[in-house]
Amino acid sequence: MPAARKLLILAEGFSGDPHFGKTARGVIRYRPDDVVALLDSQRVGETQDGFPIVGTVADALPLEPTTALVGVATQGGRFPQAWRELLKDSIVAGLDLESGLHEFVSDDPELVELAAAHGVELRDLRKPPPGLDVPTGTNLTQAATSILTVGSDCAIGKMTVSLELDREARRRGLRSEFVPTGQTGIAIAGWGISVDAVIADFIAGAAEQLVVDGAARGGEVLFVEGQGSLLHPAYSGVTLGLIHGSAPHGYVLCHLAGERYVDGDDRFPIPPLHEVVSLHEQISLLPRRAKVHAVALNTRQLDEAAARQAIAEAEADTGLPTDDPVRFGAEKLFDALGPLIAGIN
Amino acid sequence: MPAARKLLILAEGFSGDPHFGKTARGVIRYRPDDVVALLDSQRVGETQDGFPIVGTVADALPLEPTTALVGVATQGGRFPQAWRELLKDSIVAGLDLESGLHEFVSDDPELVELAAAHGVELRDLRKPPPGLDVPTGTNLTQAATSILTVGSDCAIGKMTVSLELDREARRRGLRSEFVPTGQTGIAIAGWGISVDAVIADFIAGAAEQLVVDGAARGGEVLFVEGQGSLLHPAYSGVTLGLIHGSAPHGYVLCHLAGERYVDGDDRFPIPPLHEVVSLHEQISLLPRRAKVHAVALNTRQLDEAAARQAIAEAEADTGLPTDDPVRFGAEKLFDALGPLIAGIN
Repeated sequence: MPAARKLLILAEGFSGDPHFGKTARGVIRYRPDDVVALLDSQRVGETQDGFPIVGTVADALPLEPTTALVGVATQGGRFPQAWRELLKDSIVAGLDLESGLHEFVSDDPELVELAAAHGVELRDLRKPPPGLDVPTGTNLTQAATSILTVGSDCAIGKMTVSLELDREARRRGLRSEFVPTGQTGIAIAGWGISVDAVIADFIAGAAEQLVVDGAARGGEVLFVEGQGSLLHPAYSGVTLGLIHGSAPHGYVLCHLAGERYVDGDDRFPIPPLHEVVSLHEQISLLPRRAKVHAVALNTRQLDEAAARQAIAEAEADTGLPTDDPVRFGAEKLFDALGPLIAGIN
Repeated sequence: MPAARKLLILAEGFSGDPHFGKTARGVIRYRPDDVVALLDSQRVGETQDGFPIVGTVADALPLEPTTALVGVATQGGRFPQAWRELLKDSIVAGLDLESGLHEFVSDDPELVELAAAHGVELRDLRKPPPGLDVPTGTNLTQAATSILTVGSDCAIGKMTVSLELDREARRRGLRSEFVPTGQTGIAIAGWGISVDAVIADFIAGAAEQLVVDGAARGGEVLFVEGQGSLLHPAYSGVTLGLIHGSAPHGYVLCHLAGERYVDGDDRFPIPPLHEVVSLHEQISLLPRRAKVHAVALNTRQLDEAAARQAIAEAEADTGLPTDDPVRFGAEKLFDALGPLIAGIN
């Protein structure tokens, strides 16, 4: 992907929707410099988070976007016709197209032909790159320090914690890279591999490729986006492949405060956090035993007093510095990574 | 796949080769009743392990095969022309075709057309079935008792141990099923899914499907073929997905006697066996905590005295019954599974 994307976020009919969100909102929050405008013909002339909302691709062109991002999930298998027209308008206007949809734009003959005619790229965020294989060991020879977020469950904010730590590292003047391993992370960062979409044998190879790429992009610290959970009955294989392939020097453990069960299923009680810490340490890659250095607690369901209480309890359970980086800032968690990062600073 | 396959093993030019082997030899050793003949025009009239060797597909037809099995790995991307002719002869003769090659016979337009014309099935042992998804929880509601082989490394005999235990269970009159999770196991048993070839998100779902299918085949005990190793840097993701998806009631831990390193790589020292035992127990599915009940030691590199010594040492390290089931029989390991199987017998 090009180093300097400028995004027109396609959000036709969705920009006011609360579910318009994970991808487009993530990009707006964590990569605002990459965004020039949103497109939603129903809200022309308004703004969203400070960005102008335009009604057509042509209206966005004076803002010099390079790339149109499909920022919403459309329903059903095929693109709705109105969306096809938007995608075609974008291609004809010379914009690359980036999509996290399950239906691949790069497998659509009409769009492929049009893109070739206009010299633009079609990028499917979930589509594995060609040529993946098993890891070669280059994950152990990178100069960068890698830190992986892991969790007691899925969908509790591992990506957000990695992004907040990356932002804090940049604020402190480090050359930091967020390493994206899923479609939303890829949309935010503009590169990456969706490790859950590769052939099972190549999970670790894809993860190795990602830390090699992160280091090649100049990262001296890599915050690798975690996926799934070692405790999750469906996604644990992806999680362990990512752990071994990205070969982190250390972990940050993410947990949703108050959650007692994996995926809310009472047959899957989450063990005490210190046991979850121990499990990740014991299963770390044999030549690079990694420790959990901090606990990121998602306290969104609690008021502030309860949040501080939950943080104190997690610290008592694990003996590790704990905080909610979204609510209270990432400084404390970042400081806990000091021993790993000290050599750099 | 049909319940009663009768195999013509296609081994043209390879039946005398020591590398002719893993698939064809596995079928001959563990499912001899499924084999009627081998085909190798260079050895017509000889026998192999008691089976006649024929020179053409036509010559095998009096033995009433139902299926031609590609029992060797051909080199290169495409089938050699002589092989294509053999495959076509088999199809024209009304035989189903079964192949573990990386090149899928079911993606070959000429073979697909011919198979349709002759009403036979093309089965690629490595090709994932359509419709795989994440697990649904039916792995926890099967009446069958599942036992999974796990290992300190890859390629140390997990499949063989599962097959030996299955054979011992049948010998004792149990309704036992070997549950195949890789191409050689699938060729031997005539059904299964190669779990390393599915999309990463669906490893556990595929493994769940396999134990459901194994129970549906009438198995009251399921010996699930292990894959990879939790300690292996490339394949651990497949291993953990298989552990969680197959939801075993217990494990048998496989180890190559004397091996100190994963994949022979001295950066990956294998921990003491009791730690490997503990890791598998700690990471077992939360609603079905599984124990390692026995250690299967592969002593092929040792003389008999050294083998017995190694078995004694592994027993001392783990406190678990240990044996080499290929060398000394599967009785002792099977007896160690008694507490799991007692309810059945």
